[in-house]
Amino acid sequence: MVTVAEDIAKTIKQTSVAEFFERNRHLLGFDSKIKALITCVKETVDNSLDACEEMIYKHKKKKKDYSLPEIIVSVKDLKDDNYLIKVIDNGPGIVKKQVPQVFTRLLYGSKFHQLKQGRGQQGIGVSAAVLYAQLSTGKAAHVVSKINSNSPAYYYDLRIDTLKNRPEIVSEGKLEKFEFDHGTEVVLEIEGTYLSKGEKSVYEYLRRTSIVNPHVRISFITPEGKKITFPRVTEQVPKETKSIKPHPYGIDVGTMIKMAQATKSRTFKSFLMNDFSRMGAKTVNNILKKAEISPRYRPAELTREQYSKVVKIMQKSKIMNPPTDCLSPIGDAALRKSLKTDLDAEFVTTVSRSPSVYKGNPFLVEAAIAYGGSMPSEKSVDLIRFANKVPLQYNAGACATSEVVKKIDWRRYGLNQSGGSGVPVGPAMILVHMASTWIPFTSESKSAIAHYKPIMKEMKLAVQDCARDLKKYLRRKNRARREKMKVNTFIKYGKELVNPLALISEYKKEKVNKIINHSLKERYGDLINGE
Amino acid sequence: MVTVAEDIAKTIKQTSVAEFFERNRHLLGFDSKIKALITCVKETVDNSLDACEEMIYKHKKKKKDYSLPEIIVSVKDLKDDNYLIKVIDNGPGIVKKQVPQVFTRLLYGSKFHQLKQGRGQQGIGVSAAVLYAQLSTGKAAHVVSKINSNSPAYYYDLRIDTLKNRPEIVSEGKLEKFEFDHGTEVVLEIEGTYLSKGEKSVYEYLRRTSIVNPHVRISFITPEGKKITFPRVTEQVPKETKSIKPHPYGIDVGTMIKMAQATKSRTFKSFLMNDFSRMGAKTVNNILKKAEISPRYRPAELTREQYSKVVKIMQKSKIMNPPTDCLSPIGDAALRKSLKTDLDAEFVTTVSRSPSVYKGNPFLVEAAIAYGGSMPSEKSVDLIRFANKVPLQYNAGACATSEVVKKIDWRRYGLNQSGGSGVPVGPAMILVHMASTWIPFTSESKSAIAHYKPIMKEMKLAVQDCARDLKKYLRRKNRARREKMKVNTFIKYGKELVNPLALISEYKKEKVNKIINHSLKERYGDLINGE
Repeated sequence: MVTVAEDIAKTIKQTSVAEFFERNRHLLGFDSKIKALITCVKETVDNSLDACEEMIYKHKKKKKDYSLPEIIVSVKDLKDDNYLIKVIDNGPGIVKKQVPQVFTRLLYGSKFHQLKQGRGQQGIGVSAAVLYAQLSTGKAAHVVSKINSNSPAYYYDLRIDTLKNRPEIVSEGKLEKFEFDHGTEVVLEIEGTYLSKGEKSVYEYLRRTSIVNPHVRISFITPEGKKITFPRVTEQVPKETKSIKPHPYGIDVGTMIKMAQATKSRTFKSFLMNDFSRMGAKTVNNILKKAEISPRYRPAELTREQYSKVVKIMQKSKIMNPPTDCLSPIGDAALRKSLKTDLDAEFVTTVSRSPSVYKGNPFLVEAAIAYGGSMPSEKSVDLIRFANKVPLQYNAGACATSEVVKKIDWRRYGLNQSGGSGVPVGPAMILVHMASTWIPFTSESKSAIAHYKPIMKEMKLAVQDCARDLKKYLRRKNRARREKMKVNTFIKYGKELVNPLALISEYKKEKVNKIINHSLKERYGDLINGE
Repeated sequence: MVTVAEDIAKTIKQTSVAEFFERNRHLLGFDSKIKALITCVKETVDNSLDACEEMIYKHKKKKKDYSLPEIIVSVKDLKDDNYLIKVIDNGPGIVKKQVPQVFTRLLYGSKFHQLKQGRGQQGIGVSAAVLYAQLSTGKAAHVVSKINSNSPAYYYDLRIDTLKNRPEIVSEGKLEKFEFDHGTEVVLEIEGTYLSKGEKSVYEYLRRTSIVNPHVRISFITPEGKKITFPRVTEQVPKETKSIKPHPYGIDVGTMIKMAQATKSRTFKSFLMNDFSRMGAKTVNNILKKAEISPRYRPAELTREQYSKVVKIMQKSKIMNPPTDCLSPIGDAALRKSLKTDLDAEFVTTVSRSPSVYKGNPFLVEAAIAYGGSMPSEKSVDLIRFANKVPLQYNAGACATSEVVKKIDWRRYGLNQSGGSGVPVGPAMILVHMASTWIPFTSESKSAIAHYKPIMKEMKLAVQDCARDLKKYLRRKNRARREKMKVNTFIKYGKELVNPLALISEYKKEKVNKIINHSLKERYGDLINGE
């Protein structure tokens, strides 16, 4: 007789990763029409920015000329909640045979296997946007790519075979014209909702992207046909990010065993020295001694228990922090310049902290506060969040940055805050940026940073640093306002005094007036003529 | 010369889903040691419960005897933050050749491709636990399975080849003994932190599981060697859940085209009628007419635009809600009985609402409120959340249930709540359960329900329903308390009156006393002798 187990066995099968995300599209940011539209733009533009930067670094290395990044985004209203999204960049382009793969396979890309700061990290983003287009309108994605001025541009119309997580090529061919000498164009027809402004608009995504990427020029053609340009504020290109080896503090036993199986190092000692960050001969010898392992063992000779012991010892050893040339901050000066261009704030302060480490991953935090100008004084402060130079517009509640900002007592720094916790109120904007070789997002939609303690600590220090500057500025501003009031009082009463003083002193009124003005000027200087 | 595009092309590759989750283990619930331990227990027990129920349904169908579900969980402290978790069930077991696949391949299982209420839905859970064991301790998972009393028990020691998302069999063999006639045993050695009590403990997970699965007996052997039993409260087995066809309201164009490619139906009309829920001839004819499509078209003959049109028309048509025999609630009575067994509350009320629909998925909400007893009156009310009979212990902040409970004005229902929003305060417990063929979790760790409006509406109605009962109860209780006070006053003053009344009436004191007592008893009855 057939057992239940045998019955069940017949129904078990493998799900492809594409099918999984097809069903769970909300994990990728496609759970509402507003978010879906913005996610499609974001995934495509993020890819463009990564590609443009990679091209610059490679050209710089070969001492070749390069063009600064330029991105053109357009959103066209096709009615009935359908939109046509087009993103063109002047990046390196993609070699012909890779185009179908890159734009349709999920978990396919160049970034997952390197520990390196980048916007993309898992090879899901743009294929997810193509998947969403296919699901919501049934339309194939149109991709054009040109890899240099001598090669023609190629185009593909692509669908995803979700059962296999592989491309389905609908059509392909050569094109005569392309916007730039080289680059990529992606066209997606999707179902969505377009917001022309506000926190969750494409405009706001592009504006914020431009703030933290001051070397990029972005043009945006809105559904109304308006062209908005976010100008390039600096010609200076951010420092190249290097990929690094894993740091011993972030290693699990399982990962280490896997690395040992794949290593080219002959001995366990050289494996530790070559395959990890910051493992000098002295550190390694100490670890081997404590673990009672001979340096000449081959990696394969160690037992699982020995690996487990080594990992525990490594995590308790004093090991230098990972190298930080893998991180590319926006930088203090660039951030300030950007904010001053973007906002009409009366005061801007920024801080770029030095790198730190969580779970073996190097990271750094930058923060900024802008105050005054046309920002409303009765509303909650805008908190704008970034991870590896990408704006995070959703899931603020789940993000470490929000938690940090809410827990600061802002009344100490001159902003209102009911009950001493929560988002402060006032004419200000707070910006927080985390850069890392690996951002711990709370979901695949990459919209919130997980609550790791070392990260939150750095965020707090950065924001408080800016808050102290704000406090100083506000105190100076208040003092100036009080002085100004005092002087105004003197001037007012000074005028009243002219007649009696002239009478007593027998000086002419003009002379008395001059003496009073002179002494006021001596004491309060500029305040008299200023506003 | 080599272009940058060609340079980049060399570094692109596919990541396996196992590698992806290896790196992103926090998405699966392995981001802290406390959560990791509980997640391993949970994933294994949830699998056991699903398997036990499936066996019962299959046996019932064949009119065979079946045993009620029994699960033994043990957690052993191996020191140094290492724990041995063992879960044994009396379910159907797993056929030998499937064991390595089921326990090591991610996105592998029987549930993803059926629209059916179940604890598991994506085939990730238990393999993720095996992956975590391998990562954190390097140890293989030990699985034993026996499919009937005549077959021997087989065991496997299993690892995951994450590059390929395939099993690596370390050892295998027959075993003489097994706890039950049939069933499965899973043993995992993991790094974790064990909490003996509190919201985030294994104890609490099992307690809550037992509350909503009253037909299951669970034994728990703690690291201290104590045996705790959660008894079976009812012999009644929950109704079998049926799998359903997709409902037109939840269909995207892309999904529909994919279904049309796979259908066995010859005409587009029969495709609509056979492959979807609630598409009767009349409804289908109306849709075809509106879309101007001949009923005799073959599915492949339609253009993408026609599919798009049909989907839009379907979503605006009046179509019956999906059948609800696919849902298996806990049930009003069982829930009340469970809560009464588990708590010493003075008052328990429950509600099981009728099914509703979100995005084409049928779902229903159940709620309960327990009040009084030994629950503390100064603390926030415990909100205990469930999805398809699985307790949700993490991510309360992100969950639709929390949002709903916080937005109710509890002061109207007799509980304290500062400012009229937030979790209420008082000696009470609120329970919310959502059952559906597809729970929209906010992440793969399945710990919070996404904020879909129709779901939140049903949750609100269910909780308010219970809250009204609570209000009535509290009002009755208050009235009784006031009456009691009144009577006590009468009794007190009645005694004072005995002497003067005896004097005036010339009755004996005993007689006066008797008259007063009699009239009090007549009016206030039981209150006099009660506490």
